[in-house]
Amino acid sequence: MQKLMTTGEIAKLLQGKVLGDAALSIQSLAKIEEAGPKDLSFIANPKYVRFLDESRAGAILVGPGIARKAGTVIVVDNPYLSFVKLFEVFFPEVREVAIGVHAAAVVDKTAELGEGVAIGACCVIEAGAKIGADTILYPNTHVGRDAEIGKQCIVYSNVSLRYGVRIGDRVVIQNGAVIGSDGFGFAAESNVFRKIPQVGIVVIEDDVEIGANTTIDRATLGQTRICRGTKIDNLCQIAHNVTIGEHCVIAAQTGIAGSTAIGNRCQLGGQVGIVGHLKIGDGAMFAAQTGVSNNVAAGTVVSGSPSRPIAHWKRIEASLNRLPELLKRVRELEKQLESQSATVDEKSS
Amino acid sequence: MQKLMTTGEIAKLLQGKVLGDAALSIQSLAKIEEAGPKDLSFIANPKYVRFLDESRAGAILVGPGIARKAGTVIVVDNPYLSFVKLFEVFFPEVREVAIGVHAAAVVDKTAELGEGVAIGACCVIEAGAKIGADTILYPNTHVGRDAEIGKQCIVYSNVSLRYGVRIGDRVVIQNGAVIGSDGFGFAAESNVFRKIPQVGIVVIEDDVEIGANTTIDRATLGQTRICRGTKIDNLCQIAHNVTIGEHCVIAAQTGIAGSTAIGNRCQLGGQVGIVGHLKIGDGAMFAAQTGVSNNVAAGTVVSGSPSRPIAHWKRIEASLNRLPELLKRVRELEKQLESQSATVDEKSS
Amino acid sequence: MQKLMTTGEIAKLLQGKVLGDAALSIQSLAKIEEAGPKDLSFIANPKYVRFLDESRAGAILVGPGIARKAGTVIVVDNPYLSFVKLFEVFFPEVREVAIGVHAAAVVDKTAELGEGVAIGACCVIEAGAKIGADTILYPNTHVGRDAEIGKQCIVYSNVSLRYGVRIGDRVVIQNGAVIGSDGFGFAAESNVFRKIPQVGIVVIEDDVEIGANTTIDRATLGQTRICRGTKIDNLCQIAHNVTIGEHCVIAAQTGIAGSTAIGNRCQLGGQVGIVGHLKIGDGAMFAAQTGVSNNVAAGTVVSGSPSRPIAHWKRIEASLNRLPELLKRVRELEKQLESQSATVDEKSS
Repeated sequence: MQKLMTTGEIAKLLQGKVLGDAALSIQSLAKIEEAGPKDLSFIANPKYVRFLDESRAGAILVGPGIARKAGTVIVVDNPYLSFVKLFEVFFPEVREVAIGVHAAAVVDKTAELGEGVAIGACCVIEAGAKIGADTILYPNTHVGRDAEIGKQCIVYSNVSLRYGVRIGDRVVIQNGAVIGSDGFGFAAESNVFRKIPQVGIVVIEDDVEIGANTTIDRATLGQTRICRGTKIDNLCQIAHNVTIGEHCVIAAQTGIAGSTAIGNRCQLGGQVGIVGHLKIGDGAMFAAQTGVSNNVAAGTVVSGSPSRPIAHWKRIEASLNRLPELLKRVRELEKQLESQSATVDEKSS
Repeated sequence: MQKLMTTGEIAKLLQGKVLGDAALSIQSLAKIEEAGPKDLSFIANPKYVRFLDESRAGAILVGPGIARKAGTVIVVDNPYLSFVKLFEVFFPEVREVAIGVHAAAVVDKTAELGEGVAIGACCVIEAGAKIGADTILYPNTHVGRDAEIGKQCIVYSNVSLRYGVRIGDRVVIQNGAVIGSDGFGFAAESNVFRKIPQVGIVVIEDDVEIGANTTIDRATLGQTRICRGTKIDNLCQIAHNVTIGEHCVIAAQTGIAGSTAIGNRCQLGGQVGIVGHLKIGDGAMFAAQTGVSNNVAAGTVVSGSPSRPIAHWKRIEASLNRLPELLKRVRELEKQLESQSATVDEKSS
Repeated sequence: MQKLMTTGEIAKLLQGKVLGDAALSIQSLAKIEEAGPKDLSFIANPKYVRFLDESRAGAILVGPGIARKAGTVIVVDNPYLSFVKLFEVFFPEVREVAIGVHAAAVVDKTAELGEGVAIGACCVIEAGAKIGADTILYPNTHVGRDAEIGKQCIVYSNVSLRYGVRIGDRVVIQNGAVIGSDGFGFAAESNVFRKIPQVGIVVIEDDVEIGANTTIDRATLGQTRICRGTKIDNLCQIAHNVTIGEHCVIAAQTGIAGSTAIGNRCQLGGQVGIVGHLKIGDGAMFAAQTGVSNNVAAGTVVSGSPSRPIAHWKRIEASLNRLPELLKRVRELEKQLESQSATVDEKSS
């Protein structure tokens, strides 16, 4: 299954140039510190240049002007992107789910399946669901009534898509994700909590990726919406009526509470928490574990729980290291002043 | 599928009164800022009253004494609860799982199913399990041996209920939740960890709701117990032997460690963490991201990690903003005193 | 199904000694505060000795030298381990999944199954997968192409094992866990994020336990690796290319970001977050909710977010309680010095 290419063929594919042996046979790709004589590796970050001569890699992708004492390099403009491009050559995607409907899948007769759709075993697709061309559903996934999935999506195993959710084109949904679960809405009524029906939907736009075991709740009314190009990592919680703008990146275990609206191109680190009903401006960035309970202006970088602008937060954190000592210094000052005033009293008496 | 009602019919249903056009045809419900001329909306919060005249809503539910310059209102005692009541009219629940056992479900012959039970495709129900009348199991759910589920429950798809767990009546379990997984118990023995069998169960009382992908571990011995009326959001972790009292509300991504006992009517914000073996009194409240490592008295409101009574925590947080400046001020005081004593020394000399 | 044994028989099994009635019939095991006259309990912790005389337990396992006014005790060297040993006697494991392949499972004809393997209903096993002897797969689990699972593993229901992951022997995987989901890797390219194929694998060594709904991402290239004996609790996130050493214990809802390497015998509390590309030394310990953004030396104990050595963190936290008051004290000092210098000015004038 392993692909074999020479360094010369690789250089041609990448529009690069071999310095050294252009006939070297490359079997696989590897990280610079793990690569052996049959592997191609890369160096993109100048701080790894020391690996150039240490590495056992058969050949190394490098940027212009980088030399290696012994051994072969392939010079390209962007070593990292070129390396990643080779992933598709050396690790071609393996089709696990055959086109068509597996005999052990259960597809309602009113569901509409596009051309080239692949439905894995033990998938269950309810009435009125629509699945676009070339979309792949891995086994054990449930697609609720009237849910719509676009074209060329990949939905991995054990995913739950509830009633009426709408998924765009080229969306990737990792295993175990839940889209369209009930929002967490209850009204206190004579000392018990009565469930507020959650009758809205979830809309996931094109080119979004949803991480494993992430949960996205349906809106109470209207839509919970993830706009195009946004990438959400594993185990995130997106509550009812949240809107997340375009091309955001949201790291794992982050939670966004109900009705909060996040702008475009925001970046959230892991384990960030944002309370409900806030507005987060375009391009705002959040360090890991940030806790947000106020609106954040566009372009702001924040950190801490409660969150503060990051420069202010860093100053406070640095100061905190000196707080125990500060208490002593203040006590010392008080003593000095007391003894001064005692001296003064003495002198006055 | 859309329900059509006139404002007059709606007012009659809600025991309210139309001011304006009682013959207006309403097609759907919408939030005040999104509503169009065929929609009914509501205003419950006085701070949204400005929307009364801005909104394009065909009609608006309002409380007594609230007027609108142009357009129709329906006056009711509690606009929010009246609005929610209309959800069931305009968005009637759609039955996705037919009553009976789907041909592609696997139900052990010793399992007992009540009247009106609906078992979805690819559900697997083990020996000795009991499922109460009118309960619905969505596809791909697994019910372990001797597990018991009460009446009128809804268990969504991809849920795992392990061996012997006991679920009460009218319980709702969102997709992907796991109830009865092994508690995290290991004994260190000659430098490795030996698993302590987790032989207890989980008991979920009546009217509880469990969020998507939430995990509730079985007890080491005895019970992990969620008492009646408590609502738990998505991605929460409830460890072995935890007890959660009645009518608590626990927001997403909160974790409660082993053997902690939480009282009745407690409210926990998102991403709260409570360590093991604590007692939390009735009515205690926890701000989002609170980290708790000590018992909390009944009725206390806490925040921060480590947690503090909220008023104290707020004072500290406010003071923190001034900490970097405080360091400078103390340095200044020290200088002044040094120069004073230098002056004194000079004078004395 | 309940086992009946006399106190004498239990003492013999545990190589202990009965003080009191050796013919007492024991029906079950219970915690000291919940035990009744037919139950055996234990006291391992000296702080619970007061329960000895309060408890209604028929008999109590105790360490040497501990007496009870009335009632029977069984004296053993290690009451806790002896008690846990009895779990297997009183709560023998029940086989839920029959040996062989369930008629409703879907196993590719190229998959290799060892002797004694049990495959539950609605499991789906792809081409080239290998499952070792005596391993049990609960229902609704998906095993991807070429994935390998060792001997005597238990994989609970609704688990997703993706393409090519490698699981060792005696591994336990709780329900809903996802192993081998795509790492969260995207390259910014002309203002959108392009997915970097994640072509590496996940390796789980022998005797590891993975918690419910925990997610472990496949490596971008190479391996994400969990070394032998490590125990990971529920809802944890292990990112691509992370390495976790041997015999670590990682509590629930902890997240470890990409390429971080954790040493052997580390202990992480719940909701800990560790950013990417760090090195954590052997035996490091992390309090719950710790946030780590720097390397941690072997044997260090840290707490807080951002993390600090725990003694330093405790001093800061203690000081924080006095911060609001400190601000007042400094203001007071400033006033005194101002009034001094005013007095001095007055005198000088």
